[in-house]
Amino acid sequence: MKIKVIVTLKNGVLDPQGKAIQQTLNSMGFPNVNGVRQGKYFDIEIDEKDEIKAKSKVDEMCKKLLANLVIEDFKII
Amino acid sequence: MKIKVIVTLKNGVLDPQGKAIQQTLNSMGFPNVNGVRQGKYFDIEIDEKDEIKAKSKVDEMCKKLLANLVIEDFKII
Repeated sequence: MKIKVIVTLKNGVLDPQGKAIQQTLNSMGFPNVNGVRQGKYFDIEIDEKDEIKAKSKVDEMCKKLLANLVIEDFKII
Repeated sequence: MKIKVIVTLKNGVLDPQGKAIQQTLNSMGFPNVNGVRQGKYFDIEIDEKDEIKAKSKVDEMCKKLLANLVIEDFKII
């Protein structure tokens, strides 16, 4: 089954890339964009039929590899 | 209001970064991961109270800047 994960910077962590995107959007005719935060997205195909077990494996993967928990949060969707 | 966007590579487009993550996961004790595709995620804070209008603006932003429609798809969530 396929599990989706979103990894985002924690609130308070500076996101210069998001800021650059925001400024570019502002200058491209979208003046009412007040903030952009960029994150990562993963589609994980895992050979496991039980959704609960698959999600728990993916949770482990996020903690070990996919997210840096010092500065990032992750959400399994 | 805050609008969320996911940008993913189209099916068929090679994703060497996803492949590298998959191989790393396999070697870290997750042998049943059969595929990983990486994408981008954006949190866009837009000064617009009407959700339909906000989403239509974000759709325009994706087409103009956030996604490369030749190789990527986007989804507003």
